[in-house]
Amino acid sequence: MREHVPGGHMSGLESVLVVGTGLIGTSIALALREHGVTVYLTDRDPAAVRLASELGAGIEWTPGRPADLPADAVWHPGRPVDLAIVAVPPPVVAGRLAELQRAGAARFYTDVASVKALPIRQARELGCDLSVYAAGHPLAGRERSGPAAARADLFLGRPWALCPAEETSPDAVEVLRALVKLCGGEAVEVDAVEHDRAVALVSHAPHVAAAAVAARLADAPAAALGLAGQGVRDVTRIAAGDPDLWTGILSGNALPVAEVLEELAADLAAAAAGLRAATSPGGAPETAGDAAPESSAMGTVTGLLQRGVAGTGRIPGKHGGPARAYATVQVIIGDRPGELARLFQVAQAAGVNIEDVRLEHAPGLPLGAADLSVQPEAVEALTQALRAHGWHLP
Amino acid sequence: MREHVPGGHMSGLESVLVVGTGLIGTSIALALREHGVTVYLTDRDPAAVRLASELGAGIEWTPGRPADLPADAVWHPGRPVDLAIVAVPPPVVAGRLAELQRAGAARFYTDVASVKALPIRQARELGCDLSVYAAGHPLAGRERSGPAAARADLFLGRPWALCPAEETSPDAVEVLRALVKLCGGEAVEVDAVEHDRAVALVSHAPHVAAAAVAARLADAPAAALGLAGQGVRDVTRIAAGDPDLWTGILSGNALPVAEVLEELAADLAAAAAGLRAATSPGGAPETAGDAAPESSAMGTVTGLLQRGVAGTGRIPGKHGGPARAYATVQVIIGDRPGELARLFQVAQAAGVNIEDVRLEHAPGLPLGAADLSVQPEAVEALTQALRAHGWHLP
Repeated sequence: MREHVPGGHMSGLESVLVVGTGLIGTSIALALREHGVTVYLTDRDPAAVRLASELGAGIEWTPGRPADLPADAVWHPGRPVDLAIVAVPPPVVAGRLAELQRAGAARFYTDVASVKALPIRQARELGCDLSVYAAGHPLAGRERSGPAAARADLFLGRPWALCPAEETSPDAVEVLRALVKLCGGEAVEVDAVEHDRAVALVSHAPHVAAAAVAARLADAPAAALGLAGQGVRDVTRIAAGDPDLWTGILSGNALPVAEVLEELAADLAAAAAGLRAATSPGGAPETAGDAAPESSAMGTVTGLLQRGVAGTGRIPGKHGGPARAYATVQVIIGDRPGELARLFQVAQAAGVNIEDVRLEHAPGLPLGAADLSVQPEAVEALTQALRAHGWHLP
Repeated sequence: MREHVPGGHMSGLESVLVVGTGLIGTSIALALREHGVTVYLTDRDPAAVRLASELGAGIEWTPGRPADLPADAVWHPGRPVDLAIVAVPPPVVAGRLAELQRAGAARFYTDVASVKALPIRQARELGCDLSVYAAGHPLAGRERSGPAAARADLFLGRPWALCPAEETSPDAVEVLRALVKLCGGEAVEVDAVEHDRAVALVSHAPHVAAAAVAARLADAPAAALGLAGQGVRDVTRIAAGDPDLWTGILSGNALPVAEVLEELAADLAAAAAGLRAATSPGGAPETAGDAAPESSAMGTVTGLLQRGVAGTGRIPGKHGGPARAYATVQVIIGDRPGELARLFQVAQAAGVNIEDVRLEHAPGLPLGAADLSVQPEAVEALTQALRAHGWHLP
């Protein structure tokens, strides 16, 4: 279980203002509350800030008129908080930062926008004091949004990019590092432009690609949807995200994302051309043997598939380290209460830790397969234990 | 637990020949063996057929010289099996079917290739007897391939497309239906051309799109991979599949896949153009308010994202029915043996069936969050039970 230790005072973070109580802002507030930090909350949507406050994320803060503060509140006009966290969409970060600095709201400032070059440039253009602003981006998110989806552990072990500008003071960076530490994240200092290119590759362009695949299904015949399997479900999962939120993210990282999308479009167009060429007279596959046709036209397609395999192999695995091959043990389970409980009891009794579990339910039937990921050296013990207790391992 | 009931004799399927002991062929053989069907196995790769046989999938069959058959085997030259299942790559289905028919190997024939128009057309061109051939395609697969990955329950509740040609006799279709039933699949009769367009949409083109996204990561800076989250992992998961196997699948469905890829490429190119236009002078987003910029350039991007959301909503959910909204209960768990066992014990004691579970491990930390999917009406009972037993629900 999570320890609730006060750590705010020792880190120099006693009071924080969260501006924008969406998923990220409210999750940070919840994490800081677990360390005894005094957190003030504000949002242009009164319902959002009220909900965040009721979830225990902090105290509603009304700029200029803190009538709602309890009598023992630390904050009062003229006494800025230690850190203001601007948790609003990328296009409006700089404007909000400028407002807050004019009001003298905080000693230091950061943001959580998923793009970094744009808000820094706009803050500079608006004449903000960049020496006290250290831009940041926690790499954490969910398909769900809003304060109700927030959780204190959202950032545990996740990367948190720190992108100080040239003007940013070392003190501002240290305060941001203290925030990341209290939230359980892993600070990664990276240049803002480099950051934006990286998230275009690993987050923003994949989101658009998933949306494009899903968009094809919007008007597809019902029979086609009836043939959908797990593959297309996984490819399109993130495409369920809020289009307005993502429009804001993409517009703030427009050029790096556009470059990746152009490469994607070119690869897909080349694959389509290769497929068409393979069916034209002279390029048609023959039934001459077991091997797939190796025409140069299909070579374009095969090459793309091979680069894809290489790319998937570079994605780091669980626990932040390089991808590690857990072994998978499959077992057939019924769809009744207690099936999984019994399964884990057997594993526990055998001293085996199940690293991950994935249920593949059989559509339409009260049966499914559980894929249990375990350390390779634990396969033997788990398999024997499950078989001994009557489980069916296919 | 799975029932092992003999059902082959009643269905008219007493003996079957599986030609090609890869993932699909061996899985069918295993399923039929559970129903007491006599299964003969053959493959051009002696190691593959030997492994399948050792896994219990059936008896090695040597065309023309069945020296390995046990004395009580049903088969002998001149007595064809009831059904030959051609489980080889799409481009070579028709050639193998012609060979088998020349040898008089079976009364009826089917295949399992993931494309259907091509093998039917080629079989017709090769002069095969289409009256006894009912083409089929079980919609089941895994990232792993080969007989070692096979499992008898692979088809449980999954769609299985039946694509009879004009010449196909009703008897041949009935035998194929009997096979699907014994394997636990759901027979879906569909025109071959319609089938190929459908799988291009829900399987083949998504695979190429996933490969294209993953291909971008093959040469990406290491720092970029360090910022990779769950989203890109899901989008690219299927791109780890065997490139040669997929080249064969794609070449057999070239035109329908090319059409979908061209639409995808056009959507991505348009999104890239919209993003570039939004950054050009006059189209730049301003910090004038909370809303994302609504320029017509970004409107292209937003429109694509909205179509994507609509598309994801049309994918059927678990148990074959329409997508059903399970409620999710989150709980923080440690990385020690027994944590999940205790969790499921509590759920079981509360009478709550956990429909699905997804572990989100916190990289680098021995903590994670379990997302438990349950019937909406069970949330209250589960939440109370977990809290009462000291679990931390964020």
